[in-house]
Amino acid sequence: MENTIKYFNENKERFLNELFELIRIPSISSLQVHKTDMLKMAEALREVLLSAGADKALVMPSEGNPVVYAEKIIDPSKPTVLVYGHYDVMPVDPIELWESAPFEPQVRDGKIFARGADDDKGQSFMHIKAFESLIATQNLPVNVKFMIEGEEEIGSPSLGNWCKQNKEMLKADIILVSDTGMIAQDIPSITVGLRGLSYVEVKVTGPNRDLHSGIFGGAVANPAIELAKLIAGLTDENNQITIPGFYDDVVAISVDERAAMAKAPFNLENYQKALDINEVHGEKSYTTIERTGIRPSLDVNGFWSGYIGEGAKTVLPSVAQAKISMRLVPNQNNIKISQLIKEHLEKIAPPSVKVEVKSLHGGQGYVSPIDMPAYRAAEKAYTETFGKKPIPTRSGGSIPIIAEFEAILETKSILMGFGLESDAIHSPNENYPLFNFYKGIETIIHFYRFYAEEMK
Amino acid sequence: MENTIKYFNENKERFLNELFELIRIPSISSLQVHKTDMLKMAEALREVLLSAGADKALVMPSEGNPVVYAEKIIDPSKPTVLVYGHYDVMPVDPIELWESAPFEPQVRDGKIFARGADDDKGQSFMHIKAFESLIATQNLPVNVKFMIEGEEEIGSPSLGNWCKQNKEMLKADIILVSDTGMIAQDIPSITVGLRGLSYVEVKVTGPNRDLHSGIFGGAVANPAIELAKLIAGLTDENNQITIPGFYDDVVAISVDERAAMAKAPFNLENYQKALDINEVHGEKSYTTIERTGIRPSLDVNGFWSGYIGEGAKTVLPSVAQAKISMRLVPNQNNIKISQLIKEHLEKIAPPSVKVEVKSLHGGQGYVSPIDMPAYRAAEKAYTETFGKKPIPTRSGGSIPIIAEFEAILETKSILMGFGLESDAIHSPNENYPLFNFYKGIETIIHFYRFYAEEMK
Repeated sequence: MENTIKYFNENKERFLNELFELIRIPSISSLQVHKTDMLKMAEALREVLLSAGADKALVMPSEGNPVVYAEKIIDPSKPTVLVYGHYDVMPVDPIELWESAPFEPQVRDGKIFARGADDDKGQSFMHIKAFESLIATQNLPVNVKFMIEGEEEIGSPSLGNWCKQNKEMLKADIILVSDTGMIAQDIPSITVGLRGLSYVEVKVTGPNRDLHSGIFGGAVANPAIELAKLIAGLTDENNQITIPGFYDDVVAISVDERAAMAKAPFNLENYQKALDINEVHGEKSYTTIERTGIRPSLDVNGFWSGYIGEGAKTVLPSVAQAKISMRLVPNQNNIKISQLIKEHLEKIAPPSVKVEVKSLHGGQGYVSPIDMPAYRAAEKAYTETFGKKPIPTRSGGSIPIIAEFEAILETKSILMGFGLESDAIHSPNENYPLFNFYKGIETIIHFYRFYAEEMK
Repeated sequence: MENTIKYFNENKERFLNELFELIRIPSISSLQVHKTDMLKMAEALREVLLSAGADKALVMPSEGNPVVYAEKIIDPSKPTVLVYGHYDVMPVDPIELWESAPFEPQVRDGKIFARGADDDKGQSFMHIKAFESLIATQNLPVNVKFMIEGEEEIGSPSLGNWCKQNKEMLKADIILVSDTGMIAQDIPSITVGLRGLSYVEVKVTGPNRDLHSGIFGGAVANPAIELAKLIAGLTDENNQITIPGFYDDVVAISVDERAAMAKAPFNLENYQKALDINEVHGEKSYTTIERTGIRPSLDVNGFWSGYIGEGAKTVLPSVAQAKISMRLVPNQNNIKISQLIKEHLEKIAPPSVKVEVKSLHGGQGYVSPIDMPAYRAAEKAYTETFGKKPIPTRSGGSIPIIAEFEAILETKSILMGFGLESDAIHSPNENYPLFNFYKGIETIIHFYRFYAEEMK
């Protein structure tokens, strides 16, 4: 592999500039206005994959944004790795909080600042460049397929069907994904658990128009107050979720497992300092790592009602809305949970307002086994590049499509994510350290070597 | 007065067109971008007052937007009426709900549709045209002064000081105001009570940036949820306000008074139907009329946090904000109440978030006596034009400056408002029926006659 690493080292600068070209395309999947950017982005990726050395690369239609597929089959009898990634990104608002333009990548303090720098353009691109380095130096030991979609940030609504239609083409021994994080630059880790997601939008309607709050205030239900009461009632004084049946399918984690988790390095003081908070806040009797790793949670992702401009407007709003999402642990069913919150909110709302709950997206949780060849290969690759064995961790995040892959393609996934908590993905000033970008490429190169050995 | 009414009838069309010219100036006082419109509006009013027959009309500076002052002194020994009104209007959002442009008045179904059609350009203009009709026909029986301000919708922050500085100039026997409503077109009423107002903005800050709701959800306080809990806790299950000390100064209304109020015509079914609600909603043990007339209330006028665009963004917001206002009954002090809510919210907030409460505006309530000459004159005027005696009512709305007038100018106000609940003031599609506009001018003309007689 020496010459592969040499090739990678000699081409580092070019790799970075090529990534920047991809970042400049504002491929925000949740906004209709960026529809043509999605096509432009898919086409750009196809070209990048072809020039990296793929036998073929296609922009394939789906029910939504196209999927970019590419493959390099060196020998059908050898193992096949299917790389999954996504080329769509999150919206950028609040735009005023960005220190540099989100779609004009800038390197500051050794980090690439841009929307998608980490999630998931930066991380997906590491795979393309590891792939290129292996092919250019004739060291690719297995077959490789790429499946890069454009709808991950809106819950991958089309990819499941697309996988069903292309099941044969996607046949592989393992799905390799870099869309998660690691504990720290000097503490490598592999994500072995992901939370599921149920994301709903709630609309509370009161009077048929905004009213004068003096003339009507006190006599007509205020939808903003009623929505606040609904939200407030979703968690109790122990920060447990109150939706009836919500915890029914949550599997209790054993005392031993919790004790093992407690050994993972975690500094509460630094955590609080990094977020500028005086205290963490969550479900009683659980630690911070447990609260995001093994327990479900509920968040308001946004809400709005009435007058939100400068100054005072004495209005009793007609409508109040909120986006509410729940992170689920592996055994919880996201469709069931979305139904439970809908029924619960509609049931407890007072008759003076109308409540509508609509599911926006969702997905199942996932647990990755640590006794499979791909895990062992990944463990060796991290040990090689970071000089220490990676820690298996459970992430609080969700990649809804991973559970679907297992159901549809009958293939496990290995989550080799190189992001850091400080990367501010989904936030203003998203960034990705050059250290992680380059170390990721190197680790992926070694993964292929060890994986081929493990599969012999 | 016959020839005055004749003059009014012959000039009706012109009056309407002149009002339209004033409405076309978008004088929104709460938005800085309309600063020059405020000056343009004041200048236009000055000209209208001069051509109506004022001896002099001035655009006078204040600490904020200018005040338009005009007078016609027929005889210093005669009684003086000081007309108060305001030329500023509310913002127009949500603009998409307007059926015609807010600053391009349109008459549909016998109503003027425009921002300010009623509140308060339409109502203020009735006074100018009644004044013109009386002068043109040499029937003005008293001295008249006009004071029309440009900051009522933001709580009249400068007018109190301006009144102090011009106390001698503003000397009058009564202040005449049309900035309130009446029960129905066939049920004339005079407002004898106004609620006070305390309006605050609440800001809840959690982590120093928007976070990924998967990675942090469940472990870090969500400011939107914490704000929802604060709001939810401000009223109890009986819809009583829970702020300690809030009701301390509320004067209980006697059983007899409540029984008298219950006789005012009110149709709950029509009320609910007009607002498209299944049920009214308010403080337990009080009727709808009592809830807005004699009881304080609390409303969320607006709130916002996190992602409010289309689709799903899995963000744990850094900040959540709300505009909260309380309508107060006459004996409650608005400054004290603003302090009470501030202390209360700051005290009960959990240590995992930071809460800031800032007062945006406020004012005292007012009760107008029904045994003064102006009330008797108004009663006679309504009886003349509507064919029935007006009912004294308490409005849920606030005109904070009215209580200040009494304190500073030592002059009572009479509230002859001709608006209807369906006028949608402060809302999209604000309107003012031509019937009310013309009937108002006629009633004001008669008021002067009866007032001069009462003061003899």
